[in-house]
Amino acid sequence: MRTAHTITDLRKALQPLRRDGRRVGLVPTMGALHDGHWSLVEQARRSCETVVASIFVNPLQFSPGEDYEAYPRVLDDDVAGCAQRGCDVVFAPAPGEMYPSPPLARVAVRGLSERLCGRTRTGHFDGVATVVAKLFNVVQPDAAYFGEKDYQQLVVIRRMVRDLNMPIDVVSCPTVRDPDGMALSSRNAYLDADQRSHARLISAALYEAVESVRSGERDGRRVLAEAGRRLAADPVLQVEYVEIVHPKTLEPVARIDHPARLCVAARVDAVRLIDNMLLDPTERAE
Amino acid sequence: MRTAHTITDLRKALQPLRRDGRRVGLVPTMGALHDGHWSLVEQARRSCETVVASIFVNPLQFSPGEDYEAYPRVLDDDVAGCAQRGCDVVFAPAPGEMYPSPPLARVAVRGLSERLCGRTRTGHFDGVATVVAKLFNVVQPDAAYFGEKDYQQLVVIRRMVRDLNMPIDVVSCPTVRDPDGMALSSRNAYLDADQRSHARLISAALYEAVESVRSGERDGRRVLAEAGRRLAADPVLQVEYVEIVHPKTLEPVARIDHPARLCVAARVDAVRLIDNMLLDPTERAE
Repeated sequence: MRTAHTITDLRKALQPLRRDGRRVGLVPTMGALHDGHWSLVEQARRSCETVVASIFVNPLQFSPGEDYEAYPRVLDDDVAGCAQRGCDVVFAPAPGEMYPSPPLARVAVRGLSERLCGRTRTGHFDGVATVVAKLFNVVQPDAAYFGEKDYQQLVVIRRMVRDLNMPIDVVSCPTVRDPDGMALSSRNAYLDADQRSHARLISAALYEAVESVRSGERDGRRVLAEAGRRLAADPVLQVEYVEIVHPKTLEPVARIDHPARLCVAARVDAVRLIDNMLLDPTERAE
Repeated sequence: MRTAHTITDLRKALQPLRRDGRRVGLVPTMGALHDGHWSLVEQARRSCETVVASIFVNPLQFSPGEDYEAYPRVLDDDVAGCAQRGCDVVFAPAPGEMYPSPPLARVAVRGLSERLCGRTRTGHFDGVATVVAKLFNVVQPDAAYFGEKDYQQLVVIRRMVRDLNMPIDVVSCPTVRDPDGMALSSRNAYLDADQRSHARLISAALYEAVESVRSGERDGRRVLAEAGRRLAADPVLQVEYVEIVHPKTLEPVARIDHPARLCVAARVDAVRLIDNMLLDPTERAE
């Protein structure tokens, strides 16, 4: 496995790997890699001869006061993990390599970026879309892999790729969860055991909503009210939003007559967590 | 020469032409092609084995009330001209092919886009950057060719390519002028003989400014005042701006100690015209 810290080195490393129609897959990450990321790498390996993992904590997607400085950085572990899981190239640029001058050019996906997390994280998805567009241009992958855990990000990237005609397949992979149901996230490392016991309620509320739809519930307001009640009952959780949205437009959905996404953002003390699940009315209780 | 109206057909036409490291050059145009465009095609042919000309009047870069509907469309002539000048492929998509659904994803180059023409043509350069990004992703050229005539556009595209790491050489070509000095533009077709006699003053004022800097003038205000006086003296010309700007940042320049661009926008009746020239203090009068 090669590790490239500069764009020049990365392009040099990829050039011989790109010949003869061999597919290149990109797994863009911010590092602190966990089983969620490894599932993306595995998925990439299934359909690509060459797998590139990028590791870059992107300052452009953090607002002042967010956790850019605190975000976990464990590059040596990440690189070792990538080698072990069969990545061919790791791209780990410094901020100055990605942003050598003020990034005047930005990609924005209007409409989608202002919903859900976008209401409090102003500019976040512009930062995500911009860095992903840059990574796409640097790596020029045939396919790129994103987790459903960051559902809004996935929808924003899919739309960017479609609207801008990027010649890239966007592949989504199911959220990987701990045995207690919690979605894996690099930010879970911020939680101590007590905080985690509160954070677990998020996925518990989501599972309950999925179950209720499976049992025939179609009224979105009732599903939201029940999930909201469960989360509000916890003395520590601070809910930012609980919403049922259309899977592509992210617009609120009142009746669950078609598959929809239930999305939650909540804080446990200073730690902001997100999770989501599919509400599928075509799925029947056994 | 092949003409493709869809992205699928274009990609199909280009696939066999891309092999063995053969370079693809793109000349993006809005059609109504003239010698300015042909100079871009010639330049592309000099360094690219395959030359693609795109012909697309991009609705996204016109504001309501601008000349989107009136813009000259002469596709048959354009295609014949492209064949004659040695283009390999013409890409002439319909609006619905480029924008099958509302284009939520946009590329913007902040700072540069709000200056000069951006002050009155709100959103224009976002529309330009977005469609050029799309054309780049559709054609995947090694190099793209733009005229200096649309100087701000050139600067915006250069910055987009640099900031977003697009693997494309942006090549600029000198403005082509009629014998009377007027910069070639598809919009010149809107002018009758009388209007044209007023429009000619724009390039005349620019030439005079170039001459004055060549003779030693370094005070930007004096150069602007003189050019402004000449243009204001015409009873028909309506000057929108006359500015001396830094060639890359487009910020106003007070003293011409380094090469700078003198840029003009003016209207002759309803026809909006732009032109620009290099003010080069290192160039000496003979």
